[in-house]
Amino acid sequence: MENLNRLRKVLKRQKIDALLVTQPENRRYLSGYSATDSSISESSGVLLIPLGGAPFLLTDSRFELHAGAEAKNFEIVLYPKGLLNLLRRLLPRLGVKRLGFESRYMLHAGALKLTELTSKLGIECVPLIGLIEKMRVRKDKEERDKIEKSVLLNEEVFQEIFATLAEGQTEREVAMRIENAMLLKGAERPSFETIVAGGPNGAAPHAVPGTRPLRQGEPIVIDMGLILDGYCSDMTRTVVLGTPDQKTVDLFRVVRRAQLAATATIRAGVTGKEADRAARDVISDAGLGDKFGHGLGHGVGLAVHEAPSLNRRNAKKLQTGMIVTVEPGIYLPGWGGIRLENMGVVEDDCCRILNRDRTFLDI
Amino acid sequence: MENLNRLRKVLKRQKIDALLVTQPENRRYLSGYSATDSSISESSGVLLIPLGGAPFLLTDSRFELHAGAEAKNFEIVLYPKGLLNLLRRLLPRLGVKRLGFESRYMLHAGALKLTELTSKLGIECVPLIGLIEKMRVRKDKEERDKIEKSVLLNEEVFQEIFATLAEGQTEREVAMRIENAMLLKGAERPSFETIVAGGPNGAAPHAVPGTRPLRQGEPIVIDMGLILDGYCSDMTRTVVLGTPDQKTVDLFRVVRRAQLAATATIRAGVTGKEADRAARDVISDAGLGDKFGHGLGHGVGLAVHEAPSLNRRNAKKLQTGMIVTVEPGIYLPGWGGIRLENMGVVEDDCCRILNRDRTFLDI
Repeated sequence: MENLNRLRKVLKRQKIDALLVTQPENRRYLSGYSATDSSISESSGVLLIPLGGAPFLLTDSRFELHAGAEAKNFEIVLYPKGLLNLLRRLLPRLGVKRLGFESRYMLHAGALKLTELTSKLGIECVPLIGLIEKMRVRKDKEERDKIEKSVLLNEEVFQEIFATLAEGQTEREVAMRIENAMLLKGAERPSFETIVAGGPNGAAPHAVPGTRPLRQGEPIVIDMGLILDGYCSDMTRTVVLGTPDQKTVDLFRVVRRAQLAATATIRAGVTGKEADRAARDVISDAGLGDKFGHGLGHGVGLAVHEAPSLNRRNAKKLQTGMIVTVEPGIYLPGWGGIRLENMGVVEDDCCRILNRDRTFLDI
Repeated sequence: MENLNRLRKVLKRQKIDALLVTQPENRRYLSGYSATDSSISESSGVLLIPLGGAPFLLTDSRFELHAGAEAKNFEIVLYPKGLLNLLRRLLPRLGVKRLGFESRYMLHAGALKLTELTSKLGIECVPLIGLIEKMRVRKDKEERDKIEKSVLLNEEVFQEIFATLAEGQTEREVAMRIENAMLLKGAERPSFETIVAGGPNGAAPHAVPGTRPLRQGEPIVIDMGLILDGYCSDMTRTVVLGTPDQKTVDLFRVVRRAQLAATATIRAGVTGKEADRAARDVISDAGLGDKFGHGLGHGVGLAVHEAPSLNRRNAKKLQTGMIVTVEPGIYLPGWGGIRLENMGVVEDDCCRILNRDRTFLDI
């Protein structure tokens, strides 16, 4: 309810009578309703938050039981004939004059239809951007604790699987065992599709695990995360079976130094750009600047990718309570990749790394 | 290339110089590029199809290798500074005057920004709905064969796991074993989150597998599908460990009769509504009409849910070559659910069911 009250203050300032919340993590943040959407066109429900009175969770019969069990403070209303048909009755009843909607989680076609409906009803339809996302960006104590638990469970899974890695196992098989272990240890689900990329496959930062078997001596990028009690973790390790060659060790050192440099830079008041620069400078100094094609990191919370971005463009200052990844990498087409990723809490005077895992190449 | 040529004819008729394709299955249909988007705000690439000349796949460095390997007929162009910055240069160079975009797979906020850009460039921006989806709705021979293979592999997985079901296994554990078997047998991934719902949990058509153990005698709803070579399958069986009680058998019979009635009704020229009605009448006659809250079925192809809808509202006629699910169900809160789902090809004079599995209650 606290999040709901904070939101209502924001709505009041913006003279919004009611807000439609379509974005799944925002929906969960406000209501506790944990359903996911299989895609943006297959919603498992929408919140309607009027300034006063009980908030609504609008959904269809498939989700009625789930919604009722979790969104305790919400009135559950079904839309057997679709959301718009329900809103046609509900909005006038609530006396809504200005209806906000989430411009970044409503399809262009859907927004057109909604606007058509509201204009018939004499209601002004107001596209809003990032209202709830902004509330989510600084994590309170309870959220930080949940994220830390998510990070630690993720590491537990990593360590369990790492101990059993062997030549000949396929990437896909390892990814599967990782995701199984997550579920068996109580995670809701992986926070993204687990990446296991051996040798040359590691050159694609978003490699899809395939049928290639792990081989001795080559770098294996493992990027994994899980959702525990709603909150995400995200960690990357690059490991080698047997002894890494000198090239691997050298590149690994560059990436690790870049990560440490960024970690030492991050604190409240530093910009996303400056954090990125700290890591990028180390990699550029090694003559590999063009092999680090992505940004340094991103925020993590209910979503595995959320604000703030740590990249070349973000000139906004980091704030205390944000939680970010620090994940520099080097990618050499034909050879492979090295990426290292930790998560840290932005504090007034430092970046407090949540990871405890020390599975680094022995260098 | 054939799909691309068909699309270009449609674009020409609509006087569109170039089309932006953002929807992942449409992207794959036209280019062969199989990457998925983790969400609509995290695209793994966008096609730009000019009327003449080479088509483009615009993406970022993370996906460069993957894109190049699969979208052989496309020119891969990276957007290190974002899609809009690339379009700002590319569209004028191609002489585009009318740019189409997919209104049902572009966020409201994104469409605003795109429109702002194009209007500066003197380009008209045209929202389009369902252009490529319409091309996809009737499956050609090659697609029908792929879908049949997907259905059969899905059944192989079901039968393997069904043979090992035992009291005490949790829903989640069974779902996990199903998804593992899919991957080990060569599926790309599950086509949706596998549902395993025992006893009362089965009353929610979209139940999420939990920690409840399977118990003797109660209905267990298993809804599962996989993606093989891009194409989806989707099947539901309701099974019982040990002997079902009379109520379960009676309800099962109603659902199965509803399914058979709908299957006998479906053919080219019948509307989605009529198909739905055939099943609904059987369930209503049993006095349970209000316990069948969802539609009868949906199209299946590159997406697990696509046109056509078989429900109370769709007055459009089915066409030869469509592939649909036939999945009536009965849901009793507190007790559980029964759902049976097959997939069939709409033919001129019948619905050819693709499923061979006969795991029905022995009635």
